[in-house]
Amino acid sequence: MPSHAEPGKGSLAIVGLGPGLREYMTPRALKAIAAAEYVIGNASYLEPLEPLLAGKEVIRSAMGREVERAQGAVDLARTHRVAIVSGGDAGVYGMASIVLEVLEHDGADIPVEIIPGVTAANAAASRVGSPLSGDFAVISLSDLLTPLGVIESRLDAVFSLGIPVVLYNPRSRGRPHNFLMAIGHARQHLPPGTPIAIVRNALREKEEITVTTLAEAETVGDAVDMHTTVIIGGRESRIWRMGDDVKGIITPRGYHRKYVY
Amino acid sequence: MPSHAEPGKGSLAIVGLGPGLREYMTPRALKAIAAAEYVIGNASYLEPLEPLLAGKEVIRSAMGREVERAQGAVDLARTHRVAIVSGGDAGVYGMASIVLEVLEHDGADIPVEIIPGVTAANAAASRVGSPLSGDFAVISLSDLLTPLGVIESRLDAVFSLGIPVVLYNPRSRGRPHNFLMAIGHARQHLPPGTPIAIVRNALREKEEITVTTLAEAETVGDAVDMHTTVIIGGRESRIWRMGDDVKGIITPRGYHRKYVY
Repeated sequence: MPSHAEPGKGSLAIVGLGPGLREYMTPRALKAIAAAEYVIGNASYLEPLEPLLAGKEVIRSAMGREVERAQGAVDLARTHRVAIVSGGDAGVYGMASIVLEVLEHDGADIPVEIIPGVTAANAAASRVGSPLSGDFAVISLSDLLTPLGVIESRLDAVFSLGIPVVLYNPRSRGRPHNFLMAIGHARQHLPPGTPIAIVRNALREKEEITVTTLAEAETVGDAVDMHTTVIIGGRESRIWRMGDDVKGIITPRGYHRKYVY
Repeated sequence: MPSHAEPGKGSLAIVGLGPGLREYMTPRALKAIAAAEYVIGNASYLEPLEPLLAGKEVIRSAMGREVERAQGAVDLARTHRVAIVSGGDAGVYGMASIVLEVLEHDGADIPVEIIPGVTAANAAASRVGSPLSGDFAVISLSDLLTPLGVIESRLDAVFSLGIPVVLYNPRSRGRPHNFLMAIGHARQHLPPGTPIAIVRNALREKEEITVTTLAEAETVGDAVDMHTTVIIGGRESRIWRMGDDVKGIITPRGYHRKYVY
């Protein structure tokens, strides 16, 4: 059981859990959770942690209500050891920024540690070869906090550079068309054979992986949901094959321009 | 000692070790190294693994010679369990793409697993608050494999979007001026007060962190070397303060446009 409130004894860990399976969580993340009296996070992220949560106060939240969750975490952390968890890396579309904003606004002098995790871009990429070998951009298609026009101009700019682009939050019930909107922008700048990867539940239960091309994107739109990360290759990306099998995507780093192999 | 060569018994793990300290390596990465007969990698990345390497063949390499290292790994992996390690995530400016290219070219049917790690962008960001909370871009300033003109046009495009940019390989003996070149491009698009973070040896021994602004970038140029990751904030990024202390950078996600807190 959490101890009684002790002013000055609180702390706050903002923890990135990685893609989901325990094997991909860092020891530092697990240690912060083990040390916490309160663990706060989305119910789906907390499930694999169940064995670690005995004797702790666990505050499960649904998507949304991030500001209330952050305020609650900061309030508790004045007097208790609190861990607030995000999937992936807490600093990438996760809870870190809003918690730090609330903390700053509050003026509370609470020790805070941010523990990085394997973010969805890297988890998804690792399942389809090496699509992000060089420069790349990360863009969320969620228009809850960013106007759609801004998202579209960012997509145009990064696709025009010909670097790979990772799409977070590519689709949800509230925005079913954003994935194909992004594909439309990609097609204005990249050839039809540009490889794309759709990775659902990367390195978690029920993982599904599809590798195809920009030309065929409509055929895989149904595989895209809020648990999916999409990688759209750049101008140098190509399908990675072993024999006749499509294995994934390779974005060469440019050694072929310097070396013979 | 590694067993004798057994055709068909080989495998290849391409392992991202994260920033360096053992606490930030995933159990999956450690397991792949424990199972390997041969471990191949840059000497500086292998050092923290020393206790795990007893009884294994260890092939230490210097920077450069990546193609030879990849070819050697693939040759060995026909008959032995091989782990080839990169710092951070092997898919981000690491060994994954060149190893997969050599493997494909070779046509060898070897089981391959790519194990993601915490990449430098996320490790560095976690040490300075939450600078990468929303969309961002990752650009290497190394012109060994990418022409300088291409790098400069990418910098202009991403700075003009006003999203945060992570600079990998910001400086080396061979390219001492690239960091200030990038700062020059940033200044064409972003105000002088834009925060920047210079994180040397993030989450490793001898970590050094500097947070400043675009206007002051010249004063911190000496802190930038090949072990450094630089984060240049976007148009919404600001310095994160606790009392009078500069703690880092916050890039708000936009909740302030929707909520009062």
